[in-house]
Amino acid sequence: MFEGSRFLRACRRQTVDTTPVWIMRQAGRYLPQYRATRARAGDFLSLCKAPELACEVTLQPVELLKVDAAILFSDILIPVEAMGVPLQFVEGEGPRLEPVRSEGDLRKLHVPDPAAETGFVLDAVRLIRRELDGRVPLIGFSGAPFTLATYIVEGGSAKSFQKVLAWLYGDPESFRQLLDVLAETVILYLKAQVDAGVQAVQIFDTWAGMLSRRLYREFALPGTRQIVQALRGCSVPVILYVNGCSPFLEEMAASGVDVISVDWRVSLAEASERIRSAVALQGNLDPMALFAPRPALEHEVGRVLGSAPDRGHIFNLGHGIQPETPPEAAVALVEMVHRLGRKEP
Amino acid sequence: MFEGSRFLRACRRQTVDTTPVWIMRQAGRYLPQYRATRARAGDFLSLCKAPELACEVTLQPVELLKVDAAILFSDILIPVEAMGVPLQFVEGEGPRLEPVRSEGDLRKLHVPDPAAETGFVLDAVRLIRRELDGRVPLIGFSGAPFTLATYIVEGGSAKSFQKVLAWLYGDPESFRQLLDVLAETVILYLKAQVDAGVQAVQIFDTWAGMLSRRLYREFALPGTRQIVQALRGCSVPVILYVNGCSPFLEEMAASGVDVISVDWRVSLAEASERIRSAVALQGNLDPMALFAPRPALEHEVGRVLGSAPDRGHIFNLGHGIQPETPPEAAVALVEMVHRLGRKEP
Repeated sequence: MFEGSRFLRACRRQTVDTTPVWIMRQAGRYLPQYRATRARAGDFLSLCKAPELACEVTLQPVELLKVDAAILFSDILIPVEAMGVPLQFVEGEGPRLEPVRSEGDLRKLHVPDPAAETGFVLDAVRLIRRELDGRVPLIGFSGAPFTLATYIVEGGSAKSFQKVLAWLYGDPESFRQLLDVLAETVILYLKAQVDAGVQAVQIFDTWAGMLSRRLYREFALPGTRQIVQALRGCSVPVILYVNGCSPFLEEMAASGVDVISVDWRVSLAEASERIRSAVALQGNLDPMALFAPRPALEHEVGRVLGSAPDRGHIFNLGHGIQPETPPEAAVALVEMVHRLGRKEP
Repeated sequence: MFEGSRFLRACRRQTVDTTPVWIMRQAGRYLPQYRATRARAGDFLSLCKAPELACEVTLQPVELLKVDAAILFSDILIPVEAMGVPLQFVEGEGPRLEPVRSEGDLRKLHVPDPAAETGFVLDAVRLIRRELDGRVPLIGFSGAPFTLATYIVEGGSAKSFQKVLAWLYGDPESFRQLLDVLAETVILYLKAQVDAGVQAVQIFDTWAGMLSRRLYREFALPGTRQIVQALRGCSVPVILYVNGCSPFLEEMAASGVDVISVDWRVSLAEASERIRSAVALQGNLDPMALFAPRPALEHEVGRVLGSAPDRGHIFNLGHGIQPETPPEAAVALVEMVHRLGRKEP
């Protein structure tokens, strides 16, 4: 049933009845239902670690918005904590990690066993699959090695990326060791998610957009390639997202992923023209268009659809949905995509 | 004398003895001498408004670093305050403005008379020119209308640009009115700087990089064009900087500016190839390379020089220098550019 879903068919560039759509951060703070579940969980990490609650928030947008895919509710730093990096979430500030900044710190890290050390994630996957009962496919995810490295080295969400770049420029060899440990971790983590039941995976290399094209090639792309190669046997589509992807769309396509998730800065038509290869495209509405009045929003949705390739388009935002977005706008968006994206029979 | 300077010659794509170099935010917090002057001034705005002190910090990098151009020390929000938007700088937070968010707020703004309302800036220009005594040319600057609009609408440095984009999408007509008032303000402000003695101007459209290519064309480019056309009679080179310029290098070139200041994400070779027109390029070392050991820094400087066009290159960073940069690295950078950039006689 879900094998024939719009979402998975579009990932494989097969024909669909209408354009599938999901929303990055669709299970999130903009939904009052999410905020209610989160309040019951206590803090953010507890929500990530309670499979029943993670399942609940994962399903909310499927039911409320009618999106064509669910995405596992979790945080990209979960495997990092399992590597031995103490993690906490500070209200109003975001993640705070004990930073890794030297070869000495590196030696304290280990590649975690997903079942033993992040079993709650796999339990959530199994529970969500059962609860979804084939309605829509479930996407798993992980941060990419470079993006995870920015959090680990900066000790949280980076503002200037100064420490991570100082390490990269100053001692590229030991920085590559960090990336290698992260790649190994991500591979095991994603494979375990697939084994538990996710039907596609998205790699978030969100912060790679602050790299020069050359550094992207040297320090971000190799990790993505390793992951793609390792997942080849799993036969689930792999989606790659980079915020600020414009300088290296060609490299992203060459990574071997099935789908490139394009940010809002370049049109899908331009991305297709530059990529010229058999990948599907995901995206790329400006998340801020959801604050526009309905007719303007519909106009923007029409633009994205008009710019998309005939086959192999999954509608999404160009970046995560803003916490202040009115939920009704997200509901309207999904309806618009399904209506305007309908294919001639 | 300065008319034949490396910097101005490179702006006009004429031959030079070696590559000229200056650094965005070269008069800034990374310099202990700047911090000392700033301490004497009291707060940041007082420093901007005291011509003698602004002159002092403008000259510091010329003397300490041997850069090939001075840039007026000021803040891009100075003309905004003069428009009638109350402004303060909060220590550790940055600028805080009384936000303009509606047509009603718009009516409270006026186009300031530069001499009457920002005379201290023009006094600083005259004083700096006198003190420079022809050693190097002086660059004036302004924020571009779109970038100034982000500060005005968000009420400070934007994190998500949500309010400005909500206005843009929701009521493009009144948002254009705001941009028009800003363009008029910037034109008078830059003309007054030229009359007072600046020998080149840089337009900072720093935050336009968060726009899609289409929105850049519709909401950022027109303001830049208006400014370029208005300054045509002044015969000073105009430099345009956008952080995240990769999606719209072609549009930036079509704006009519003399120099495009490229961020660090794309190579100058790629920028030249895409632009294919008679503009000079400024940039584009990754500011983080200044945290690297000297040999790695020199390697990166060599890369930028190797990627630059034969004529018409002004070396700079791809973004402002980080406050934590060791001043010795900036000194070393200038020496490296002058040594490695030397042209065959």
